[in-house]
Amino acid sequence: MERFLLSAVAALGVAAAPPPKPPTLGDIVNAARADEWQRVDPDDLMLVELGDGSRVAIALAPDFAPAHVANIRALIRAHWFDKGSIYRVQDNYVVQWGQGDDDKAPPQGLGKALPAEYDRAAAGLPLTPLPYRDTFAPKVGYSGPFPAAADGARAWMAHCYGIVGVARGLTPDTGSGGELYAVIGQSPRQLDRNIALVGRVLDGFEHMTARERGTGALGFYEKPEQRVAITRVTLAADLPTEARPAYEWLRPESASFAQWLLGANHPR
Amino acid sequence: MERFLLSAVAALGVAAAPPPKPPTLGDIVNAARADEWQRVDPDDLMLVELGDGSRVAIALAPDFAPAHVANIRALIRAHWFDKGSIYRVQDNYVVQWGQGDDDKAPPQGLGKALPAEYDRAAAGLPLTPLPYRDTFAPKVGYSGPFPAAADGARAWMAHCYGIVGVARGLTPDTGSGGELYAVIGQSPRQLDRNIALVGRVLDGFEHMTARERGTGALGFYEKPEQRVAITRVTLAADLPTEARPAYEWLRPESASFAQWLLGANHPR
Repeated sequence: MERFLLSAVAALGVAAAPPPKPPTLGDIVNAARADEWQRVDPDDLMLVELGDGSRVAIALAPDFAPAHVANIRALIRAHWFDKGSIYRVQDNYVVQWGQGDDDKAPPQGLGKALPAEYDRAAAGLPLTPLPYRDTFAPKVGYSGPFPAAADGARAWMAHCYGIVGVARGLTPDTGSGGELYAVIGQSPRQLDRNIALVGRVLDGFEHMTARERGTGALGFYEKPEQRVAITRVTLAADLPTEARPAYEWLRPESASFAQWLLGANHPR
Repeated sequence: MERFLLSAVAALGVAAAPPPKPPTLGDIVNAARADEWQRVDPDDLMLVELGDGSRVAIALAPDFAPAHVANIRALIRAHWFDKGSIYRVQDNYVVQWGQGDDDKAPPQGLGKALPAEYDRAAAGLPLTPLPYRDTFAPKVGYSGPFPAAADGARAWMAHCYGIVGVARGLTPDTGSGGELYAVIGQSPRQLDRNIALVGRVLDGFEHMTARERGTGALGFYEKPEQRVAITRVTLAADLPTEARPAYEWLRPESASFAQWLLGANHPR
């Protein structure tokens, strides 16, 4: 019926002023002011280099899991991840990397038990809320570049696409951070507050997500040759200044982010 | 604190009966009775064979989009998809296949405009609800093997991982079904009720999800040689009986499904 009415107006040649064209998401991002952007701290920028020459950039989240992030920084500097591999790719779930060997413990005491950083005090954590709750929490939104949720006095990072977590065994194991995973499918939000989440992938995630799925239980690769070699993992802070890649996020508390969010939630 | 108490009990050697071990999800599925399963109708079973010898099985959903599903069956029988390709893989979004050529219309009148089957009457559609609403609809659950949502008098399939939709241009185009996509990332539920959804992938989805991501705009492959050849698409009903693969779903209204759902929503 609407189509008929529109056709009729066109046929009559009615010269109405066209409605203002809404900005695209790209327009909104491009128009954001410099002070609405914030650069990822080089101490929190983890760079995973793979055997095929590709690189995956990850923003670490010390505000959510300070002890795990500190341990991951130490593991990087102890070269734990170098010569490790991607050894698990489970469809609609996770890609996982590290040494992937239950008999190998991180060196220099870095494999020890850490506090269960599965959530934290909501107080002191900036959280720009979405205008609605979701299925898993009464308050959801963004804290810096990270999706976050809160329920009264507690807050936590939300298990979304590209979020990086710490693989662990059964409780009371909390994981050392020596084996990490990233979400490559539907957000497994049922894991929220059960695992330490330590960051999110910023760039190059396609070099992890497009990998062959593992055919072993839980998506582990069954043959050693399926593993994707990691050649080097570094913190940007440890690279010469001129070699550090720079990533910025649009502050969730900015006016441009609010405008972007409104657009992103409407099909176009 | 709980850990301390448990340790103290163990130290005292208290011989309590161990709590009953809850069944695993596998136990629940394996124990389901034969009449709790339902076989996919061969008329609704679409088989996509790829150039590397792999096969993806899709259950079509005539209850949600009868005109589009009928057109897809006709397109399959007109060999529209044979010698087509996967030509778009956008990370955290969709894989898309068909002829992928704007200048090529489906043959034999099969490219004509179809009704906008973006939702349907809730009446007459079985829908086993989850015990909660979600962010996008007051009622969500399963209708046969499909995730579904409802809002008062209308119901629709939900854009979840592995759901198959009909690519289309801007409104009023509804798509013919000659170009299809499947969701390979976070559920783009903002598209619900804006696109005709026609089925879900049942098996072999890893042969689509693990593909190289396209580097063109919207994840389209930029080079023809990146396209993944489709060698043949058939309906199981058109194969000799002995060559038809059989898939069954656990009826959402069954007791075993309810037990499975309870387990699936709790981390283990």
